[in-house]
Amino acid sequence: MRSVKVGIAGLGTVGSGTVKVLCENAAEIARRVGCPIEVAHIGARSNRLGCETGQIKISQDIFDLLQNQDLNIFVELIGGTTTAREWVLAALATGKPVVTANKALIAEHGSELLAKAKTHKTYVLFEAAVAGGIPIIKTLREGLAANKIEWIAGIINGTGNFILSEMLKDREFSEVLIEAQSLGYAEADPTFDVEGTDAAHKLTILAAIAFGMPLSFDKVYTEGISRLSSLDLLYADTLGFRIKHLGLACRTAEGVELRVHPTLIPKKNLLAKVDGVMNAVMVKGNALGPSLYYGAGAGSLATASAVVADIVDLARAVVSKGAYRIPFLAYEHLSDVPVLPITRVRSAYYLRVQVQEQPGVLAHVAQVLSGFEISIEAILQKSVHSQTGLVSIIILTQPVLESDLNEAIRKIEALAETGAPVIRIRVETLSE
Amino acid sequence: MRSVKVGIAGLGTVGSGTVKVLCENAAEIARRVGCPIEVAHIGARSNRLGCETGQIKISQDIFDLLQNQDLNIFVELIGGTTTAREWVLAALATGKPVVTANKALIAEHGSELLAKAKTHKTYVLFEAAVAGGIPIIKTLREGLAANKIEWIAGIINGTGNFILSEMLKDREFSEVLIEAQSLGYAEADPTFDVEGTDAAHKLTILAAIAFGMPLSFDKVYTEGISRLSSLDLLYADTLGFRIKHLGLACRTAEGVELRVHPTLIPKKNLLAKVDGVMNAVMVKGNALGPSLYYGAGAGSLATASAVVADIVDLARAVVSKGAYRIPFLAYEHLSDVPVLPITRVRSAYYLRVQVQEQPGVLAHVAQVLSGFEISIEAILQKSVHSQTGLVSIIILTQPVLESDLNEAIRKIEALAETGAPVIRIRVETLSE
Repeated sequence: MRSVKVGIAGLGTVGSGTVKVLCENAAEIARRVGCPIEVAHIGARSNRLGCETGQIKISQDIFDLLQNQDLNIFVELIGGTTTAREWVLAALATGKPVVTANKALIAEHGSELLAKAKTHKTYVLFEAAVAGGIPIIKTLREGLAANKIEWIAGIINGTGNFILSEMLKDREFSEVLIEAQSLGYAEADPTFDVEGTDAAHKLTILAAIAFGMPLSFDKVYTEGISRLSSLDLLYADTLGFRIKHLGLACRTAEGVELRVHPTLIPKKNLLAKVDGVMNAVMVKGNALGPSLYYGAGAGSLATASAVVADIVDLARAVVSKGAYRIPFLAYEHLSDVPVLPITRVRSAYYLRVQVQEQPGVLAHVAQVLSGFEISIEAILQKSVHSQTGLVSIIILTQPVLESDLNEAIRKIEALAETGAPVIRIRVETLSE
Repeated sequence: MRSVKVGIAGLGTVGSGTVKVLCENAAEIARRVGCPIEVAHIGARSNRLGCETGQIKISQDIFDLLQNQDLNIFVELIGGTTTAREWVLAALATGKPVVTANKALIAEHGSELLAKAKTHKTYVLFEAAVAGGIPIIKTLREGLAANKIEWIAGIINGTGNFILSEMLKDREFSEVLIEAQSLGYAEADPTFDVEGTDAAHKLTILAAIAFGMPLSFDKVYTEGISRLSSLDLLYADTLGFRIKHLGLACRTAEGVELRVHPTLIPKKNLLAKVDGVMNAVMVKGNALGPSLYYGAGAGSLATASAVVADIVDLARAVVSKGAYRIPFLAYEHLSDVPVLPITRVRSAYYLRVQVQEQPGVLAHVAQVLSGFEISIEAILQKSVHSQTGLVSIIILTQPVLESDLNEAIRKIEALAETGAPVIRIRVETLSE
């Protein structure tokens, strides 16, 4: 087969992101699937984000896509629960699978859509509906399939988490909301986010997948964050807790709890350390125990990552004609990319040089480093060590080629004042 | 089909855990797959952990399992790279899939095993080989398939991470190692763990899946933690860093870096906050950005969680006769478990009661709570608020039924001294 053809309805934030990811990562994705995935048809009334669509066929009416028999997979990215629902039902009726990012649609109409898919022997996939690009649906459905899931605790709305992170700095809700809106983290009407409805949609879906229960959006107890005071965040901190807007799904002997509300959680728990707009879902399974999944819960490319992961799953099934075949090492064709020897790695370093305490010694060491064009990020000098009588000079360097650093270290160790081998530990900022 | 039959070689820590998980979670797993998964045959020379095997057929010779034509899936849990390799090759030659937890086997002989599987049109799955029960292999292979993976940074050896977490408390390596050994976190010969070989095996596998490159264990630069001093952890802390034993796989323009070594990472990065024996893998994808996957990297049931996840994947394929069909909500049969109304939820609470500053008011409030049998975990009294003239009494309760708490709050609000509505926020410890 020459390519797997995708039809995308909607060119908003997520639609544009999806087109972008499929184009920019086309080669890598084709290497994984065994054949290219092609955006063959887009349905959108406008392209206000200016997405690059090249030669892709565009229809004003999204229902035109459903007439295009060349398409293998349909993707719903228009949002909302009226036209989106009609379109998805009609798409499933063609017998082809649908991928969506629409949490409200799945939470409120999922049962109907899944029944339709079953009737037509096809699929609805919705990884992107919860926690952005974090593959939490797949994790609950497959990765944790060995467990009886006991509970889920999720920071699944970035707007609320950003606001609470800022309120901890002794700022009030209304002031932070304005900042969130200006940064694009909150809508003009922020109700859905701050009152918890968005989180409730997502929790509904998580609970259905984790517990094997029907989608029960109407049964989720929902309480927002708009009435919290920074005083309570401060007092909670005094008591050893952070306040987070959590979605909680818990299995108890009496039944399932589904609730979204502000919650104090211990500061030492990893979930409490998730700040800003990031999402995180903690899951307790009776075999694995607690595990946590953290990443960007929103954003054009982050959400597209989840949409395209579902597309890849379907494409792999299409390519293997229904049988599910994933290449062992995840790629159909392995690249013979060279593995660099350690001497060719560029890294920043922590160095601890132990020297006799003499005037000018720090300058000597700095001179050696500058001779190799090694820039210094920071230097500390520590007092004389009681046992060795040596002073420690701590240096943080900027990134440097390992082979250059090795030579610089040899020269430092050769200095008369140096009394012990140089201790070196690599530094990673993990930010890009 | 009446059941999917599994043959397990090895009844050690992971083998026993796997049998236990498949038995204890049998009903939940059957509900997910659509038919039971049965441990039909075990191969083990001994059962020194005293695993409950009921009526399961046990052979002393693991090669007997390969003669049993009733089995659908083979599971290798004996470890090591000699007999395990022979057995896996012979198992694949029967045309049936193999699940393993054996990182050394995959890292060192994976290419051969995968080629054998391909020849016989079957599978080798190895989720349990890396990061225990965290489904990181599936995440890289499927959940993040939309991304070009830029780098992976993993805390993938719990022994080393436990030791470094303890050394941060001004303890030396050798002293902590002894404690780790007594707690069962380190082997009698700890070399594999502390010198980084175990992490290198795992990194090899992660990189192959993430970058679509051959398994390249011999090219991983490996450096252990045994020469670190607690002084360096302290100085790194001063500079704003934690030292972790990381496995790093990075794509650069010149090639791929594969390295395991002690590394300074910024304290504010979530990876730096992972302590003790837990594992965590951070992945940077060019669409999603950074994401993190955290959980138990070792342990009988935790590792079994990953083994059984692979078994479930294969069982789903067996049951749907090669076509890959996952039920939409992850379960073939949905349970109609009741959703509890919020009044029936038991939770601990943070309460802020604002009262006029009068003698005995705290006692009044405490009396109301004890009248409802609500136990108090902590009480703080805060000074008079400048604007309201009221004093805040902060109370942390033990778990209480929401309906009881509602009544208690009504009574507190009815007290003469109470000057504002009671603020209440639920508390979750997330520890069990």
